Amino acid sequence: MRRDEEKLPAAVEAAAVAPRSRPSAYPEPFAARMAGREKRVLGDLFGLGNFGVNLTRLAPGAQSALMHRHSRQDEFIYILEGAPTLVTESGETALSPGMCAGFPAGGLAHHLVNRTDTVAVYLEIGDRTAGDGADYPEDDLEARLGLDGRWQFFHKDGRPY
Amino acid sequence: MRRDEEKLPAAVEAAAVAPRSRPSAYPEPFAARMAGREKRVLGDLFGLGNFGVNLTRLAPGAQSALMHRHSRQDEFIYILEGAPTLVTESGETALSPGMCAGFPAGGLAHHLVNRTDTVAVYLEIGDRTAGDGADYPEDDLEARLGLDGRWQFFHKDGRPY
Repeated sequence: MRRDEEKLPAAVEAAAVAPRSRPSAYPEPFAARMAGREKRVLGDLFGLGNFGVNLTRLAPGAQSALMHRHSRQDEFIYILEGAPTLVTESGETALSPGMCAGFPAGGLAHHLVNRTDTVAVYLEIGDRTAGDGADYPEDDLEARLGLDGRWQFFHKDGRPY
Repeated sequence: MRRDEEKLPAAVEAAAVAPRSRPSAYPEPFAARMAGREKRVLGDLFGLGNFGVNLTRLAPGAQSALMHRHSRQDEFIYILEGAPTLVTESGETALSPGMCAGFPAGGLAHHLVNRTDTVAVYLEIGDRTAGDGADYPEDDLEARLGLDGRWQFFHKDGRPY
């Protein structure tokens, strides 16, 4: 047997996984803006290290993240339920179940916003390329991925949060 | 603007994407065993380079791949339709919509088999870590990912196909 896969599940019902306990890694006042967003961490359950997969639920009015773009990591989303709006630097796109979108490193800043009165659910995938950073064109925030795998947050003038 | 994202779609309906024209990268007689498998390549549409995402459809009797495991790349699947069976070196698991599974590099060899009389549809995600290889415990086959990003296939005694 390789690794400790005896302890890993063969498969899981994604919606039955407990939500992540920490609502957001952002510092305040940004973390509060993530109210109504709930993430179920799926890829880690199986011991995946190269990329993460979450099942993410946006209550009415919630958003996926601040408008942002990664410097080295790619992202992908696939809509399972609801009708969130994809907002990027170049415009808005109405999404619905069965639609998907991808956000290459260094591409357009983007996020999803649920402007409807029903829940939106989607899969989000992001790789874990080292040395990543994120910039937030609408907010006084920049992020760098530390060697410990944790995000460090800074004001745009370089002061840490 | 970064890269050439003016040409990239903001979002697509996954099922409306044209299927990949090449049914399988395997040499014969293995490629013929992939009959009934159809892949729609999604991640590449958005310029993603670090990982691939496909919408894959298995007709009744079809399978996802030969039983295999990767040496460096992780894989993840999420079932959208149907009830394929996950077959790994340690046993079988019945899958259904909303279930997911992950396959870490160096973990259990695995594949999906559609033993039902209805179509199965799932998302499959795999990263593109360089230097990957795949081994196939049930077949006289080994694969190495070339520097050009193409798979090279060998007999277990090292002779190329």
